[in-house]
Amino acid sequence: MSSSYGENIKLTIFGQSHSQAIGMTLEGIPAGVKIDMDKLEEFLLRRAPGRNAVSTPRKEADKPEFVSGLVDGVTCGAPICAIIKNTNTRSQDYSKLKTIPRPGHADFTAEIKYGGYQDYAGGGHFSGRLTAPLCIAGAICKQLLMAEGIEIKARMSSIGDICDNEELMINRILEAKEQGDSVGGTIECCVLGLPVGLGDPMFDGMENRISKAVFGIPAIKGIEFGAGFGVALMTGSKNNDPFYAEDGEVKTKTNNCGGILGGITNGMPLTFKVAVKPTPSIAIEQDSVNLATMENAKLVVEGRHDPCIVPRAVPCVEAVAALAIYDAYLARKKELN
Amino acid sequence: MSSSYGENIKLTIFGQSHSQAIGMTLEGIPAGVKIDMDKLEEFLLRRAPGRNAVSTPRKEADKPEFVSGLVDGVTCGAPICAIIKNTNTRSQDYSKLKTIPRPGHADFTAEIKYGGYQDYAGGGHFSGRLTAPLCIAGAICKQLLMAEGIEIKARMSSIGDICDNEELMINRILEAKEQGDSVGGTIECCVLGLPVGLGDPMFDGMENRISKAVFGIPAIKGIEFGAGFGVALMTGSKNNDPFYAEDGEVKTKTNNCGGILGGITNGMPLTFKVAVKPTPSIAIEQDSVNLATMENAKLVVEGRHDPCIVPRAVPCVEAVAALAIYDAYLARKKELN
Amino acid sequence: MSSSYGENIKLTIFGQSHSQAIGMTLEGIPAGVKIDMDKLEEFLLRRAPGRNAVSTPRKEADKPEFVSGLVDGVTCGAPICAIIKNTNTRSQDYSKLKTIPRPGHADFTAEIKYGGYQDYAGGGHFSGRLTAPLCIAGAICKQLLMAEGIEIKARMSSIGDICDNEELMINRILEAKEQGDSVGGTIECCVLGLPVGLGDPMFDGMENRISKAVFGIPAIKGIEFGAGFGVALMTGSKNNDPFYAEDGEVKTKTNNCGGILGGITNGMPLTFKVAVKPTPSIAIEQDSVNLATMENAKLVVEGRHDPCIVPRAVPCVEAVAALAIYDAYLARKKELN
Amino acid sequence: MSSSYGENIKLTIFGQSHSQAIGMTLEGIPAGVKIDMDKLEEFLLRRAPGRNAVSTPRKEADKPEFVSGLVDGVTCGAPICAIIKNTNTRSQDYSKLKTIPRPGHADFTAEIKYGGYQDYAGGGHFSGRLTAPLCIAGAICKQLLMAEGIEIKARMSSIGDICDNEELMINRILEAKEQGDSVGGTIECCVLGLPVGLGDPMFDGMENRISKAVFGIPAIKGIEFGAGFGVALMTGSKNNDPFYAEDGEVKTKTNNCGGILGGITNGMPLTFKVAVKPTPSIAIEQDSVNLATMENAKLVVEGRHDPCIVPRAVPCVEAVAALAIYDAYLARKKELN
Repeated sequence: MSSSYGENIKLTIFGQSHSQAIGMTLEGIPAGVKIDMDKLEEFLLRRAPGRNAVSTPRKEADKPEFVSGLVDGVTCGAPICAIIKNTNTRSQDYSKLKTIPRPGHADFTAEIKYGGYQDYAGGGHFSGRLTAPLCIAGAICKQLLMAEGIEIKARMSSIGDICDNEELMINRILEAKEQGDSVGGTIECCVLGLPVGLGDPMFDGMENRISKAVFGIPAIKGIEFGAGFGVALMTGSKNNDPFYAEDGEVKTKTNNCGGILGGITNGMPLTFKVAVKPTPSIAIEQDSVNLATMENAKLVVEGRHDPCIVPRAVPCVEAVAALAIYDAYLARKKELN
Repeated sequence: MSSSYGENIKLTIFGQSHSQAIGMTLEGIPAGVKIDMDKLEEFLLRRAPGRNAVSTPRKEADKPEFVSGLVDGVTCGAPICAIIKNTNTRSQDYSKLKTIPRPGHADFTAEIKYGGYQDYAGGGHFSGRLTAPLCIAGAICKQLLMAEGIEIKARMSSIGDICDNEELMINRILEAKEQGDSVGGTIECCVLGLPVGLGDPMFDGMENRISKAVFGIPAIKGIEFGAGFGVALMTGSKNNDPFYAEDGEVKTKTNNCGGILGGITNGMPLTFKVAVKPTPSIAIEQDSVNLATMENAKLVVEGRHDPCIVPRAVPCVEAVAALAIYDAYLARKKELN
Repeated sequence: MSSSYGENIKLTIFGQSHSQAIGMTLEGIPAGVKIDMDKLEEFLLRRAPGRNAVSTPRKEADKPEFVSGLVDGVTCGAPICAIIKNTNTRSQDYSKLKTIPRPGHADFTAEIKYGGYQDYAGGGHFSGRLTAPLCIAGAICKQLLMAEGIEIKARMSSIGDICDNEELMINRILEAKEQGDSVGGTIECCVLGLPVGLGDPMFDGMENRISKAVFGIPAIKGIEFGAGFGVALMTGSKNNDPFYAEDGEVKTKTNNCGGILGGITNGMPLTFKVAVKPTPSIAIEQDSVNLATMENAKLVVEGRHDPCIVPRAVPCVEAVAALAIYDAYLARKKELN
Repeated sequence: MSSSYGENIKLTIFGQSHSQAIGMTLEGIPAGVKIDMDKLEEFLLRRAPGRNAVSTPRKEADKPEFVSGLVDGVTCGAPICAIIKNTNTRSQDYSKLKTIPRPGHADFTAEIKYGGYQDYAGGGHFSGRLTAPLCIAGAICKQLLMAEGIEIKARMSSIGDICDNEELMINRILEAKEQGDSVGGTIECCVLGLPVGLGDPMFDGMENRISKAVFGIPAIKGIEFGAGFGVALMTGSKNNDPFYAEDGEVKTKTNNCGGILGGITNGMPLTFKVAVKPTPSIAIEQDSVNLATMENAKLVVEGRHDPCIVPRAVPCVEAVAALAIYDAYLARKKELN
């Protein structure tokens, strides 16, 4: 099912940008786990809009209510359901989108797919807003992994052609903002503390699991593991990560494989990088088509939007990594005594 | 399950490099479909080894036997099972791999994961040989899609730093071969004739579906759709593909999104590119660890291997694309009357 | 996942008897379907408590709020989420259940399974109350099937040893009530208007699909299709349903198979019958164990309970039948052009 | 998928009665398990035909070949595939079945479902012969469970109206045989040694899991757990199984619940009973329809058939119980540390 993820946990995300609420159900989390709500809300804050100059000034009170699955903040074995009420529903900003689809958005494909019945307000179920419940689920898995010594950390690695310099990257975003335009970038993610043996051959390798999850974040258009596309330029003698023994453990001198061999973690840091496209909602006039008349049309997207989605996507990348890894972690438990 | 793929079709791949046979079962293919066996075998030949100077001289008679699911070459609605007998089983070439794992291979991770019980001969279930049954399944889906006017075509786009020049790319492979080394590359894939509306939001978008399948090919380390990592360098005004109307259809002037908006096909060509790592089996001596003694060790991989897996991976990429797209195609049928 | 059902639709039920809310998410319902809310609430009323002398006098305002998936009462293609707020949460009636489990309830098994962290209040996630969201989902599928000419109708067929006489059955329930006891019964379900061809061989036959769903209703302990356990007493010449042609259609003279041959509907009425156990909550003192001391203990279950769950289970049986059949209906669409 | 079963193991059954081979793939079995092949073949012998007067005199050499997943008889973590070659393929006995469907068989429903492309020879994928690979998978799970102290034992409990008397039951079968007729019966199954805590609430309870599997055996038309349909006749005070403490364990004085409370094992024997219909293939002339002309027709089923399927179905019931329980056993491992 399209809005569900996982084999051993099962996440379902529901809601539209302007429905009464958005939220998630999460099955398969063991009973007896204390959820640190402060930490969870702190995590959600990292993706919340309106916090600084580089994000949309829209305010969303993304405070989750846990309506089931917890007793006094501790999991009880039943499915967890958390909802976030949409305060700003059915506003009139978006009424044109059904007729004149926004380039770079799902307006057109959703119109055809759902035969005109899609919820076009604010992008409906395709809205980036749906990453809020994604982050709730991810935050829970992240806490569970942290308790096992597994840490997930993502960071913004480039904005446009600017790499690894926070100040210049911020400037690049503000520059796009000033131009009524937007800009893309990349995010790197690193997972530390993984045991050897997570992931499975063929279609359930760590690459398969993570990529299936990561493209659940709107705007991601590419993913690479370890040296990634760089491997295409290398020889085997360069790309192969030599093994060596240290303190009774097997390690590799390089980590071109990104901590994954045959789909399975090898105990080295698991690393991957994703490409994030520039926010499609820009203030500049764009070419589109009036679907009612099938004539070409001009479109100016109204409303206030992020000039760059990358900063807010960083916790989302951590969230999907946490989901994928925790799911693989549970799968691994079935093999061990 | 790790060796299974699909929601509406279900592919299961079985076998090890040196087991009695390898093969696949494929459920969900409608009854009444005539499989063109000549075309299927022709497709398998594209990945078969031993055909030219740039591939391993090992001979494998990859002739599939269809043991169920067909009556007189026509699908009957029951699961299709095809097997390929391994003629060259349990040879003694590989006995060292259990103790001294090959860098870049799954030997080490499988040893830990399966507690020493993995089938280490020839890479076992992790062997590239398992892409033969993958191509059987892919070939069937490809024929089914072709009957609907959907065509899948992949090509080798670079070898090392050589792009788009067949002769120079071949030379680059031969050069690596001479040095007892190997070399990586990239493969581009393009799907034509897709209707609007395949794929689903969030975790079952075309990107999710294809990437989950594509990392089932050993050696793939990255995937990007449309402009891919290039989107990270662009502004929204550049990256957004403007819509226009032509002959009563909505098209886009550019195709940076690779034919996918919100996870759903938009009717333009679906394009993606993957990074293939250099064959990890090289003749050059490498560093490894003796797992029995936990001391560092030197390893020379014996046997004859592809100096570059890219040419043989091209049909494999088409195969996984066909699987993913046909699965999405069946999903779409549930929405339509 | 334990609280999810379906291959082509995906239902997830969440909530505990005393959590903030109970509810359901339902994926896979096509866009453009108008939900008749009056009919849906009417259906829910059939299982609601407190309506007459034979059910618990507890009042539950089981009014569902649809928080996503609908736009103006019409499905939009996104997951549907409906919640029912629990008004009567965390009451003190149930505090003893954790220590002294009620016979016939899940108190003991949940205590062990969830390591003491289960939500024991009111049966938690095991409460019969969770059939309310089940009925929401079932009501939606029922409406969708009705639009295709498929009608589902269940009825109470026996209470204790009284069969098919409404008045005597009610009296039998009132008798049990007077004694502080409870009583079981059976429910028959009949599905009319099914086309030939729903259901699949082996593990996805109509029997498999319906039984997997039906045991999701707490208190069901048996299911039989058509002549059911009666087939064990018959000869083949008696049990085989002879075919005959009428009005260009193939029919059977008898319907011992309950409309299912090889797991697939044959166009005749699909019939099945389930056994419902007597409500385990009774006023009579019972033997149990104090789990804290591991000593035998006496237990009197407090609160007001249904003396017989059968009447309220009738719409639940229709609901699960609707879920199973609609799921099979969507599966069938993939086979047809 | 219809011919697949399991969440934590995944069984796929392939083949038709007269295809080149039948077989199964089984994923998810841990590495390092020694399969006792003698025991496995002994188990298969219990369902094999031609062994005595009450079964069909057809000979089938149901010797499985394990083509993958084992190394020296020990599981290696890769999918297990076993095939059984069909020696007696495409015989001419069955050519009429496509036009004149046999009452009680899937001939008619398969004809419609697969648009005339089904493999009608010998019942195709619907043949009882497909229980041979089912028993291979079941035998493996049975051995794995036995190693954990969990024992599964089924027995023939009635034939026609004769109960629990082996000699009279055999006579009843021979009587049916003499009349060119067949007879049905029941099978009881008991599982000993189960820990508390297997199974999950709602749709993955032990009843749901077992019933979904058990209806995979052709000819099963009903299932009941514990007191089963008997609960409908009881009061709560009678049906509730009182708890008591013994040797530091919680037990129940009666076992009307069949060892399952809330879908979860309670540590008492898990018991269930199934109804098996009389073999539909009988020598007596029957009424059918000629599908080509849509006229009524007479049919005499040729070939030699079991006068009663019950004896051979006994190991099949053990097999599906083993599959369901082992799957739940693996699920339980994810909850425990």
